Amino acid sequence: MIQNDLLLRTIRKEKVERPPIWLMRQAGRILPEYRAIRSSLSGFVELVTTPHLAAEVTIQPVDRLGVDAAIIFSDILVIPECMGLPYELIEKKGPYFPRTISSAADISALEQGEVAAEKLDYVFKAIEITKKSLNDRVPLIGFSGAPWTLLCYMIEGQGSKTFSKAKGFLYKETKLAHQLLQKLTDTIIAYLKLKIKAGVDVVQVFDSWAGMLDKQLYRTFCIPYLKQIVDAIQDVPVIAFSKGAFFSLEDITELDADVIGLDWTIDPSEFRSRFGKECVVQGNLDPCALYGSKHNIEAKAENLIKSFEAHHIFNLGHGVYPDTPLDNVKHLVNFVKQYKYQ
Amino acid sequence: MIQNDLLLRTIRKEKVERPPIWLMRQAGRILPEYRAIRSSLSGFVELVTTPHLAAEVTIQPVDRLGVDAAIIFSDILVIPECMGLPYELIEKKGPYFPRTISSAADISALEQGEVAAEKLDYVFKAIEITKKSLNDRVPLIGFSGAPWTLLCYMIEGQGSKTFSKAKGFLYKETKLAHQLLQKLTDTIIAYLKLKIKAGVDVVQVFDSWAGMLDKQLYRTFCIPYLKQIVDAIQDVPVIAFSKGAFFSLEDITELDADVIGLDWTIDPSEFRSRFGKECVVQGNLDPCALYGSKHNIEAKAENLIKSFEAHHIFNLGHGVYPDTPLDNVKHLVNFVKQYKYQ
Repeated sequence: MIQNDLLLRTIRKEKVERPPIWLMRQAGRILPEYRAIRSSLSGFVELVTTPHLAAEVTIQPVDRLGVDAAIIFSDILVIPECMGLPYELIEKKGPYFPRTISSAADISALEQGEVAAEKLDYVFKAIEITKKSLNDRVPLIGFSGAPWTLLCYMIEGQGSKTFSKAKGFLYKETKLAHQLLQKLTDTIIAYLKLKIKAGVDVVQVFDSWAGMLDKQLYRTFCIPYLKQIVDAIQDVPVIAFSKGAFFSLEDITELDADVIGLDWTIDPSEFRSRFGKECVVQGNLDPCALYGSKHNIEAKAENLIKSFEAHHIFNLGHGVYPDTPLDNVKHLVNFVKQYKYQ
Repeated sequence: MIQNDLLLRTIRKEKVERPPIWLMRQAGRILPEYRAIRSSLSGFVELVTTPHLAAEVTIQPVDRLGVDAAIIFSDILVIPECMGLPYELIEKKGPYFPRTISSAADISALEQGEVAAEKLDYVFKAIEITKKSLNDRVPLIGFSGAPWTLLCYMIEGQGSKTFSKAKGFLYKETKLAHQLLQKLTDTIIAYLKLKIKAGVDVVQVFDSWAGMLDKQLYRTFCIPYLKQIVDAIQDVPVIAFSKGAFFSLEDITELDADVIGLDWTIDPSEFRSRFGKECVVQGNLDPCALYGSKHNIEAKAENLIKSFEAHHIFNLGHGVYPDTPLDNVKHLVNFVKQYKYQ
C-alpha cells in the first residue's frame, strides 16, 4: 500500500536497487518552511503539542527533500512529561525540568505504563493526521528515547557535559535506578504500541547518551531494558540507535532489533568485518561533512554505501545540524537516490 | 634524586611493586584548601597567572592525598592566549573567547612558536616555585592541550556539545585548518620545551575533544601534529591522552609516546589483547565510580589493576568531578598504594 516502500524492503533484507535515505532531524531548522512555522509560535513545546502543526512539519522534508521516510515531529522528553515530570525547552540552552528525581518517593510518585502514555494524545493525533496527509507516499517512523537517556534528564534536570549526576545515581542508588528504568521501560513500550496503533510503520529508539557509559554499565543498566522494548514491539520493525556505544556493539547486535543505528565514529568496513554483512544498519555520515563541498559529500557518501555493501539505510550519524546548508542536504539526498547498487 | 620515583620507573618499564597513582584535576574543587584560595580571588584566570598560588594548589593534593605525582596547575587555553587570542573563564559556563578565528587573516595575525610561548612566564615561574617547594618528593607533570582541541576553542569561542563549527572548519577550510594546526603545534612544542627547562619531569598532551572526530579525520588532522610533538620532546617522557578516540587507538599506539592515556570507555582487557602487554598505559577508572560505596571503589580499582596486569599508571578516565566526596578519593588512593603486584 505504501508507494515508496524502499525502507521497508531494505529492513526485510530484500534485494533493493539503492539504499533508502532519511535524515535524523530532517524536520527542523534547515527548512525555511519549518522556521516560518516555528517563529509564529510561543515555543518548541507548542509545536510538539499541536497535532496539525506537528504533522505539517513532519511532511515538509518529504516534499522538499524527497526523502524515503518521514519521522513524526516530536520530542523524546514527552515520556517524562506524561509520567509527571514536565519540561520546558529554553532557547539556545536546551531542555529544563523544574522538578527532578532524587529519591524513592519521587520515583513512586511517577505514573507509568499505558496510564501515563495515553496522556500523549497529541502525539497519536499528529500521527493520524500525518498518515492521512502523507497518503502512503513513504513510511512514517515513530520514536522514543531509551530508558537511560530519559533517566539522564530526569535526574540532571537539563543537559550536561558529563551526566555525572545521572551516572552517579547508577553507582550510588543502584536499586532506585533499576526501579526508574523499569518504569520508563513500561511507559516506552505502552507509548510505542499506541504510536503503532495510531499508524507508524517503523519505530526507532534513541539512546542519545549511551556513550557516557561503558560496556559493563551499559550491559547492566541499558541492555536488559532495550531487550524488553525490542521483544515487546512485534508489529513493526525496530531501529535501535545507541549513540556513542561503540563498546557495546556486540550486546546491541544481540538485541535482535531489526536495524542497528550507527553514529559517525563507527567505521563501516570494520563494523561489517566484525558483525557480518547480514545485519541491517542505519547511518552514519558525519553531519559535519555537509558543511563541505558537494564533491566531497558525494565522495564520502559513495564510500559509505560501498563500505556497508548492502542492507543499509542511508542516514547521518547524528541529527542534521541546524546551520547546515540546505543545498548540500538536497545534494546528498539526490546523490543517494540516483545511486545504483552494482 | 626524586624520592618517590615510582611513576618514572613505571614509565621506564621497570618492575615495580604497585601502580603509581595520580588523578587528573587532583588540584581542584575536591580539596577544601583549594576552594579557600579560589574563593579569595577574582577568578580562575587569576589563579592560573599567579605563580606562587598556582604552585601552592599544585602541591595541595600531594600533601592531602599522598598521590605519586603532582601536575602543574594551569589551563590548556594559555596557548591560544599567548598566540594572541585571550580567554575568560565564566563561572558555571566555561571558557569564552571574545575573539575567534574564521579567516586566513585571523590565522596570519597569530603569533607562534617560541616567541608566543615565552610570554607564558607565569607558568614557568610557577613550575620553578613548585619544584623548589616539592623538594623532589614526587615528579612534576607539565601539560598542554593538543592542536585539535585548542583549534576547537579558537574557532567556536566556547565549549559545544558537537563542536560542529570547528569540525565544519576542517571540511570547509581544510588548508586553513592545517595552517592553524601547524602554528599550534609549533607553539605547543616550544611551550613544552620551556616547561621542561623550568623543571617538569613528564609532560602530558590532552586531546580532550578527540572523540568528536573519526578515524579518518583524526588521522588527517591530529595524528601528524601529535607525531611532531612526540618526536620533538626527547628529554622527558610524554603521555598522550586522546579522550574518546577509541577509533584511533592503533594510530595513537604508533605515535611512540611513552604512555597512552585511556578514558573509561576503553576496556582494559580488550586493550591489552589488541595492543599487547608491553605498552605503558594510564587510566582509566570511571570518575563516577567515586560516587559509589568504598567497597565498590575497591572492587573496581582491583579489577582495573589486574586487567592491565603491569606497565600501568593508575588514574581516572577523565578529571575528578568537583562534587566527588573527598573521602572516597582518599580511599581510592590509599587502596592503590597498599596494593602489591603478585
